[in-house]
Parts: sequence; structure tokens; C-alpha cells
Amino acid sequence: MQDDADLLEEFGRRLRHQRTAIGLSQEELAHRCGMHRTYVSSVERGERNIALLNIVSLATALGTDASTFVAGLSRGP
Amino acid sequence: MQDDADLLEEFGRRLRHQRTAIGLSQEELAHRCGMHRTYVSSVERGERNIALLNIVSLATALGTDASTFVAGLSRGP
Repeated sequence: MQDDADLLEEFGRRLRHQRTAIGLSQEELAHRCGMHRTYVSSVERGERNIALLNIVSLATALGTDASTFVAGLSRGP
Repeated sequence: MQDDADLLEEFGRRLRHQRTAIGLSQEELAHRCGMHRTYVSSVERGERNIALLNIVSLATALGTDASTFVAGLSRGP
């Protein structure tokens, strides 16, 4: 069970890991998703409670499955 | 590649499937997550672009992994 900050930061770490693994800059990834670079940056820092459609857009743009970003995360009520 | 409505509806179907599989009402699930029943209902109907923390709360409350809800979803830019 993670607290909210840990959970969002873990999501951000996974996103950054997937992005750098294929050698993409934040700007390139943002462009592919129709997002702004500063938005991608803030998600990677765990500062955003990112919503479903954007999660799926980022995963698709990175050629990975959205489940990669959320597997194993848990949260109390 | 799903359009946004299809994608949100698919998420909602999976949520409803997991909830009914363990015999939980929308009200009981909402209570476990500190949400309102009408919110859970609208997510199940695909009317909400639900954010990460709520996705993880619902999964945890259902005893399932958050990846169950998003695996295989994809979305264009």
C-alpha cells in the first residue's frame, strides 16, 4: 500500500524508464501525444494525478502496454 | 486503437465485471473507496476520464490489480 505521493512518483519513474529505454526526449514524447513537454515532465516527477486517456496515450506512444505503468500499485481508501 | 468513448466504456465494463464477480454493489464498492455511488456508476458507464489514484483505489478495493483495467488499451495522439 503506497501513499499518494509514492504512488504518483512510482508511475513517473516507470514512465521515464520506458521513455529513456527507447531514447526519446520528453519533448518528442509530448509531441507524439499532443501534450506539452512541461506536462510530461511533471508527470515523470510524480506531480500529476494523470487521467486514464493520457495514461493510454503515453503508453501507446512508447509502444508499451498501459498495464506496465500501474501493475502492482495499491492504495487505501 | 480505440476512440475515447470506446476506451472509457471498456474500462467501465471491466470495472463492473470485477465488481459483480465478487458480488459487491456499487454502493459497497464506493464506500470502500471513499467515493460516492453515483461516481462509481458514472465510471462504469464510461462517462469519466478517471485519474490514476482512483483507478488504483478501485482495484485495491476489489482485490485485483490495476493492470486488469488498462491492459491492451491503446489510443492515438
